[in-house]
Amino acid sequence: MSIVPRPEFPEHAVVREVGLRDGLQSIATIVSTARKIDWLRDAHAAGLREIEVGSFVPARLLPQLADTAAVLAFAKTLPGLRASVLVPNLRGAHGALEAGADLLILPLSASHAHSLANLRKTPDEVVAEMGRIRAARDASGAKTILEGGVGTAFGCTLQGEVKPAEVLRLMQALLDAGADRVSLADTVGYANPRAVRGLFEQALRIAGDRFWCGHFHDTRGLALANAYAALELGVARFDASLAGIGGCPHAPGASGNAATEDLVFMLQSMGIATGIDLPELLALRARVADWLAGEPLHGTLWRAGLPKTLAAAVAA
Amino acid sequence: MSIVPRPEFPEHAVVREVGLRDGLQSIATIVSTARKIDWLRDAHAAGLREIEVGSFVPARLLPQLADTAAVLAFAKTLPGLRASVLVPNLRGAHGALEAGADLLILPLSASHAHSLANLRKTPDEVVAEMGRIRAARDASGAKTILEGGVGTAFGCTLQGEVKPAEVLRLMQALLDAGADRVSLADTVGYANPRAVRGLFEQALRIAGDRFWCGHFHDTRGLALANAYAALELGVARFDASLAGIGGCPHAPGASGNAATEDLVFMLQSMGIATGIDLPELLALRARVADWLAGEPLHGTLWRAGLPKTLAAAVAA
Repeated sequence: MSIVPRPEFPEHAVVREVGLRDGLQSIATIVSTARKIDWLRDAHAAGLREIEVGSFVPARLLPQLADTAAVLAFAKTLPGLRASVLVPNLRGAHGALEAGADLLILPLSASHAHSLANLRKTPDEVVAEMGRIRAARDASGAKTILEGGVGTAFGCTLQGEVKPAEVLRLMQALLDAGADRVSLADTVGYANPRAVRGLFEQALRIAGDRFWCGHFHDTRGLALANAYAALELGVARFDASLAGIGGCPHAPGASGNAATEDLVFMLQSMGIATGIDLPELLALRARVADWLAGEPLHGTLWRAGLPKTLAAAVAA
Repeated sequence: MSIVPRPEFPEHAVVREVGLRDGLQSIATIVSTARKIDWLRDAHAAGLREIEVGSFVPARLLPQLADTAAVLAFAKTLPGLRASVLVPNLRGAHGALEAGADLLILPLSASHAHSLANLRKTPDEVVAEMGRIRAARDASGAKTILEGGVGTAFGCTLQGEVKPAEVLRLMQALLDAGADRVSLADTVGYANPRAVRGLFEQALRIAGDRFWCGHFHDTRGLALANAYAALELGVARFDASLAGIGGCPHAPGASGNAATEDLVFMLQSMGIATGIDLPELLALRARVADWLAGEPLHGTLWRAGLPKTLAAAVAA
């Protein structure tokens, strides 16, 4: 099958900051609630309007994210911010609905091996959980958007290959079970731009406007190339974390998520509006890097600085 | 103008290793001729068939490359290897022709400010030099291919904007003056994939089969995304340096060239044959990193390792 990318790019794109959840989750240094609130305030001031603020999981499993309710409560005071939280199951979803999250993400791993190891559920059991979460959301009257995030969509460190047909079957099943939106994640950095083109094109056919977000890890340096391949198909929402925090437990020191600042730079240098002020974002990165001294940080733009030619675009 | 990338990718691509020239040129540690020969031998054994081995410039300007003739003489003993050298002018070209280089690259900076600062010539004076080099090559009977490399093709740290029309005019002028091949280089990491798509599409129209190579620096993290954008247009030859050495004199510590190992990984994971054995290349990277201890090195694959899913492709 030949897929021809679109000749035109989106005019606007959304970068969702996931450093406060996906990033901090794999970092040993405990960041205080006060600093998370500083981070949120400054990210919002820099123009970010979608932020994943934490995870409703038992505090004993992820002490780093035990203050998610407090962080979310602050996020709700920031005008125009869509605050997302991750939930592993119905119990977490109840927490997210009660706390008034604007969006909750239920992760599903398309790799059966990874799903059992990580969530202790098969992928289809996670689909069933989405059905229960949908019922709970509808019964509660909450406006929380339900996102089903299909991870290990390009392969898995435990299982190796993950078949695209299985990824797409599970995405369809999540929609059928009541997800409002679905996303695809290259959890372990196995994707390449050709594979992104192939899988995302089919995912967009299945989900249409309900396709939400591309989540690319930079474990092997391809996060931005992969994001570009999705962008060419019209995908205009991406996850990223400041300084690329996120890591990969199987490869100590390896890159984690796409670095927010580098992704925003790519988009803006292409003339795609993000609403984000890059100098402010780089200033925030410097503060966060200070808080996380000793942790592996990533990204390139912070060192090289903005090119002269972007000055006009940044000011616009 | 809307440019539609090709639906199909090239089946094969060539990665030209430039670490021995563009890489070492900006590194303080002097690498001995014996180690350069080890590097060449092992790069050839790993499957690389195009290598830029040095530069015919006065030794007092670049002592790191003073042994280019000796390194080139060894390169010529490696079967099937196309050995390139850089020359700044006719005098250097005489050296390259006498030494029997398979290809010589004359760099031209499309930024007038950069050209004057770096080469002490206007771009059009460099075009005229290509005419003299062509005459010398033809008179000598040498089979050396003449490549005109148009640098700062996406902007310049001194001048800021470089107009695409000027880049294309100079590319055409190099061909008219007798260059066999022309290339485009993002010398300072100002390119983005949309700009690559736009400029390379026009360059391919002008140069056709005489378009040779894309040279992308990773100063701001976009080298692989930019290479992918060129690949989509049918470009199938790229410069890269092992461990991304090359640097940017204006941004200490910033990334330099695309890292050979990451670029080869991207191509091979896309099913594009490069003839290169990635585990052997990573082993060579480890040795070179040892020689360059203390210098800023880059790239991501070396830390994360190959994904399970690439095992079959690597073995093939």
